Amino acid sequence: MKQQRKPDVLVELAKRRGIFWPSYEIYGGVRGLLTLGNIGFEIKRRLENLWIKYFVHSRNFQIIESPVIGPRLVYVASGHETQFTDKALRCEKCGAVYRADHLLSEAGITIPEGALLQQIDEVVSTRGVKCPNCKGDLSKAFQWLLMFKTEIGAGSGEIGYLRPETAQGIFTEFKRLYVHGRSSLPMGVAQVGRVFRNEVSPRQGPIRLREFTIMEVEFFFDPDSPGPAEKNYLEHDIPVLTAEDQEKGLSDFRKIRVKDAVEKGLFTNNWLPFFLVLTKRFLEALKIPENAFRFREKLPNERAHYAKQLFDCEVLLESWGWTEVAGFAYRTDYDLSGHMRVSGEDMNVFISSSGRRIVPHVVEPSFGAERLLYALLEYSLRIEEDGRICLSTPPYLSPFDVSVFPLLSKPDFVKKAEEVAKMLGDFKVNFDDSGSIGRRYARSDEIGIPFAVTIDHQTFSDDSVTLRFRDTREQRRIGIESLQAELSKMLSTPKPDI
Amino acid sequence: MKQQRKPDVLVELAKRRGIFWPSYEIYGGVRGLLTLGNIGFEIKRRLENLWIKYFVHSRNFQIIESPVIGPRLVYVASGHETQFTDKALRCEKCGAVYRADHLLSEAGITIPEGALLQQIDEVVSTRGVKCPNCKGDLSKAFQWLLMFKTEIGAGSGEIGYLRPETAQGIFTEFKRLYVHGRSSLPMGVAQVGRVFRNEVSPRQGPIRLREFTIMEVEFFFDPDSPGPAEKNYLEHDIPVLTAEDQEKGLSDFRKIRVKDAVEKGLFTNNWLPFFLVLTKRFLEALKIPENAFRFREKLPNERAHYAKQLFDCEVLLESWGWTEVAGFAYRTDYDLSGHMRVSGEDMNVFISSSGRRIVPHVVEPSFGAERLLYALLEYSLRIEEDGRICLSTPPYLSPFDVSVFPLLSKPDFVKKAEEVAKMLGDFKVNFDDSGSIGRRYARSDEIGIPFAVTIDHQTFSDDSVTLRFRDTREQRRIGIESLQAELSKMLSTPKPDI
Repeated sequence: MKQQRKPDVLVELAKRRGIFWPSYEIYGGVRGLLTLGNIGFEIKRRLENLWIKYFVHSRNFQIIESPVIGPRLVYVASGHETQFTDKALRCEKCGAVYRADHLLSEAGITIPEGALLQQIDEVVSTRGVKCPNCKGDLSKAFQWLLMFKTEIGAGSGEIGYLRPETAQGIFTEFKRLYVHGRSSLPMGVAQVGRVFRNEVSPRQGPIRLREFTIMEVEFFFDPDSPGPAEKNYLEHDIPVLTAEDQEKGLSDFRKIRVKDAVEKGLFTNNWLPFFLVLTKRFLEALKIPENAFRFREKLPNERAHYAKQLFDCEVLLESWGWTEVAGFAYRTDYDLSGHMRVSGEDMNVFISSSGRRIVPHVVEPSFGAERLLYALLEYSLRIEEDGRICLSTPPYLSPFDVSVFPLLSKPDFVKKAEEVAKMLGDFKVNFDDSGSIGRRYARSDEIGIPFAVTIDHQTFSDDSVTLRFRDTREQRRIGIESLQAELSKMLSTPKPDI
Repeated sequence: MKQQRKPDVLVELAKRRGIFWPSYEIYGGVRGLLTLGNIGFEIKRRLENLWIKYFVHSRNFQIIESPVIGPRLVYVASGHETQFTDKALRCEKCGAVYRADHLLSEAGITIPEGALLQQIDEVVSTRGVKCPNCKGDLSKAFQWLLMFKTEIGAGSGEIGYLRPETAQGIFTEFKRLYVHGRSSLPMGVAQVGRVFRNEVSPRQGPIRLREFTIMEVEFFFDPDSPGPAEKNYLEHDIPVLTAEDQEKGLSDFRKIRVKDAVEKGLFTNNWLPFFLVLTKRFLEALKIPENAFRFREKLPNERAHYAKQLFDCEVLLESWGWTEVAGFAYRTDYDLSGHMRVSGEDMNVFISSSGRRIVPHVVEPSFGAERLLYALLEYSLRIEEDGRICLSTPPYLSPFDVSVFPLLSKPDFVKKAEEVAKMLGDFKVNFDDSGSIGRRYARSDEIGIPFAVTIDHQTFSDDSVTLRFRDTREQRRIGIESLQAELSKMLSTPKPDI
């Protein structure tokens, strides 16, 4: 039997069982837009809840919800209108538009990420690069704005942008949020929400999306303060690929003790490594294997315009190699100062311990929910020796907690199963009474339900049921009265201790 | 002491404590955009979870997540591009644009909701209506498209719209969803997500928003089938204001037994009343008082273009009177047939019991999350005789489950309080150790936390704490070991039984 590639199996499974698929296929599809089916949605919502537990509730941060649409001035002040761009080339003949780096890379030419428009024009000209579609001549390179644009309301024609990050919806409201946070630093404000990036022409399936869910914290702090009060984070080892190592031509990450890295001055502030450690704990809860993720420090020419230092958290995926799933930017006071300048509002705060007025600095941990979901799925997928598929997600990240099946579709079996399902009302129950029990187990395994309870003949004599385990296919008898406690124990969520 | 209006108190509280406020105030604000602060977000997320429990999990429906942006053809097929409009008038002098019905109503002229452009022009001309802003002449009435428009990707200039409802992201994916739903009817598919409506010039604060969260079910069924198998819904009484009564000039709702209404032919199908009953149960869980909501049948000229019959669920609010918080549309096969016609894809399904091929019909219960949140808050707000504010939300719809306070800010009190907070890790805990205990109770009451646990002197002798109840200010001693069980009981969520 031919060995199947995991990503191919996953994409097929995802369409067949309702995890994810490209949207609007009946209209030919739109690149970079994805629909999550029932199974995908339920897993993603639990992933979001777990992130909120780790990055919001356990830290006593605020979490808010701000609009998708922002008036133009917000993105003037943030620098996005001029800086949040890709370099692009247009075919003068057929009109196709390409990302310059992608087009040149397909022509076998590598350019540095920070290359200027002029450098691109020179390469195109000296190497005679043409449109791969129609061999037409290419335009001069130009900046393509990655924000979607729209107009707000009638009459005024006010320009609005769809947010490319939720961050600006926090920065613009900083003065109120600071009061809600009892007017003290440090202060974390999180947001989980949809963001939009008008990619020139995305081609990486579920990975490069024009719409996705971001989960981010804007963490405000006094840059003269020493960092986290609890020092446990210093004792963790984390996998890091430094900018320095990359400049030496090295490409393997090293496990480093945070304390040593801090002493060597790797981090521009002490909150960055704190959030890297918290992220390590979070990825452990997702069961991403130890050597399958790393923190890569981005090189100066790779950094977003607002970042003084930037680490990506990358997960190793079979189709796309090391893939960014989160970013950790030290944004300094760039954003608040920008909004002060453009709006005229004072965003200084008073630090009572030292009697200074400062504009707070910001560290931002920012996660892509769909990419994390994809990584979780790829590492959960098991293709068994008999060819059957098992989605071994951690129980607390499964779409349902438990399946409840009557062994037979006879009325008394169904009725009893419905009673058990109702008794388990605090859990998310997948009730299924159609088809053979074997097929129901197989389906339950494929969509990642960790446990199955089956009402069978013996149930009627001693009130016991079969409890079946997805990952081992082991079956065990258990009294109905013990089910709730047993399931609660097996479904408990890990704690975000550092 | 002057009696304060509840809505004024609520809006002030909402800004001060981080429930909601107008977004982008530092840039002068954008009408119809709202930010939810920490307290607002947490209550809204629980409201969404409760809705999902009632309208998705308890019915074994699917719930999915589709993109905000849709290619133009989707909204051609759905009829929105031509039908989802408001009639507007532009001032020829100052350029201001007005919703025709609002402008005329302010001039003391009422026009029917279905009035034609020509009728509006006649009224404007005969009554000599001018621009209220500059007294300039008004343009001819025109259709203002209520969808936000954008362009997708580079080069092609493909037009996209921001969805005004999540429904089309379900209809376009119907063929896959039907397979995931085991290829049988009836089938419910839900979505909770952000939608966008480019209102001409919204002026109703938190009620008329350009961006809000919709919670909706597209319920697909065979129009020749008899309706719900369980008949309990027929025995409920629901408050209804029928179209017939309105046409007779009546404006009071009547409590009617569903069975009688069905027999009299009030409903075009039996699923509509089923969802009205489920909604009644849901509003009961929100503690909206019995006579403060009603189901108003919309008149033919008030109905959305896709609806053959439409009921609004309206809640009585102090500032806005009877206010729509949900709609129940019988959409027939309008949408699926539209997508069949425009995409060329066959959306017929085979009904094995009768051997027919049909395009399923759709009933759509659709809820506005922010309006429900506002209604919940207005009915939860209590202004006490001593002037203090208490937000008496149902415990399961509170932003946090429980406050944990050390009576004093001494290290041993704080340490013990932290231990108790950690022990309550499965609950959402508001830990607060700053300020006097009285102020902490007052703050906890204002943001709607139903219970407070205080670690005091006695705690150190007998391991008991003070348990305080928000709604009565009653205090009771309880052993720490009993806290979890006691809180679990008091925080339990009602079941969506019909």
